[in-house]
Amino acid sequence: MSLKLFELVGTDPARPFSPFCWRTRMALAHKGLSAESIPWRFTEKQAIAPHGSEKVPVLLDRDKPVVDSWAIANYLEDTYPDRPSLFGGEGGRAMARMLNWWGDLAIVGGIFPLIIADIPKNLAAVDAKYFRRTREARFGKPLEEIMASRDTGVVAFRKSLDVLRFTLKAQPWLGGAQPNYADYIVFGGFQWARVVSPFRLLETDDPVYAWRERLLDAFDGMARTSPGFAV
Amino acid sequence: MSLKLFELVGTDPARPFSPFCWRTRMALAHKGLSAESIPWRFTEKQAIAPHGSEKVPVLLDRDKPVVDSWAIANYLEDTYPDRPSLFGGEGGRAMARMLNWWGDLAIVGGIFPLIIADIPKNLAAVDAKYFRRTREARFGKPLEEIMASRDTGVVAFRKSLDVLRFTLKAQPWLGGAQPNYADYIVFGGFQWARVVSPFRLLETDDPVYAWRERLLDAFDGMARTSPGFAV
Repeated sequence: MSLKLFELVGTDPARPFSPFCWRTRMALAHKGLSAESIPWRFTEKQAIAPHGSEKVPVLLDRDKPVVDSWAIANYLEDTYPDRPSLFGGEGGRAMARMLNWWGDLAIVGGIFPLIIADIPKNLAAVDAKYFRRTREARFGKPLEEIMASRDTGVVAFRKSLDVLRFTLKAQPWLGGAQPNYADYIVFGGFQWARVVSPFRLLETDDPVYAWRERLLDAFDGMARTSPGFAV
Repeated sequence: MSLKLFELVGTDPARPFSPFCWRTRMALAHKGLSAESIPWRFTEKQAIAPHGSEKVPVLLDRDKPVVDSWAIANYLEDTYPDRPSLFGGEGGRAMARMLNWWGDLAIVGGIFPLIIADIPKNLAAVDAKYFRRTREARFGKPLEEIMASRDTGVVAFRKSLDVLRFTLKAQPWLGGAQPNYADYIVFGGFQWARVVSPFRLLETDDPVYAWRERLLDAFDGMARTSPGFAV
């Protein structure tokens, strides 16, 4: 096998930060696969256009492109069925579809306003300009203004994690006795924040914090040793 | 087999309305099992105390009590493994634990303020009094005051269903190609509302509405033919 993964980075090519790319990184590790990382920046649209995408992650399995983190997870599950399962069966695959939306809306969507003005600090000028222009258009205000209320916003964000928190009181991982793609979906968002922002999302006595710590340690500390802030 | 199910009712013993009991009703039907219904009212604590519970559903499998809808779903899956699966494998079972919390917090918790003052209309005086006293203590205000803003509250509730809505655009059921317990978890909340309140929770052009319609039709229209409002 020969796998390559386009991953979003900023000024440091060894510091991938996209929450969606981190889902894929963890999924690859879960399957015991390694992929050559191809650093990709926001304004490098032409590098992935030939593969049919405007966004990352894009996985190349030899010459075959697979686009979008959810599609990649399904591709890995179907292509490498003899390796540890990402979904734990077809019921898990179906339910992970909904958890993937929850990860997008509640986790990535919930964290974004809390770290948004920190992100350009990690980017080269051309990418920072692109990021600011597109995101300010989406939110309808300056990044700094979006983030100004984060000290109160984080309280609501923490409360929104009850679904996750209560689950983790009943079982060690979202995937059950062992982590699986359900865990990586949610973890991707936390790792994104950890890489780009010093802002503290979680209290240390939160079961979600302990779960995140365990995922930082997974796969020989792959996520923890990737450059980031100690939050 | 001899199954009995304690189900929450009000003045009409043939009108069960608990969202949690409806999860169990749908799960039993999915397994092709039937249970004798034992109508139970809020103030009949002594009827279920011997079975180790203060709340319903309580399932009796001969003399063995199983308490709590989640525990019942797991019991049915483990006890009747040759019948259609509720979870579609161990990954599904684990992820359903989180969806169960989402159902409790986002669906039951989201619907509650929208229908709360309609509920006592379905109850005998002694139960209505109990319901009002305990729920007003929980919310810290009169039921009517909680529900007064439901015309704006329902807009936020509908928005909160995006996780569900987007999933249903990609697959027909939360369980995938066929419904499973993930669907019943969420449906239970909608059926609860349908039985006790004429308030319209969903727009008719919402994919969630179409999905609810299909679950109302499931199992020979079991949920649709159970008395309720046409919403």
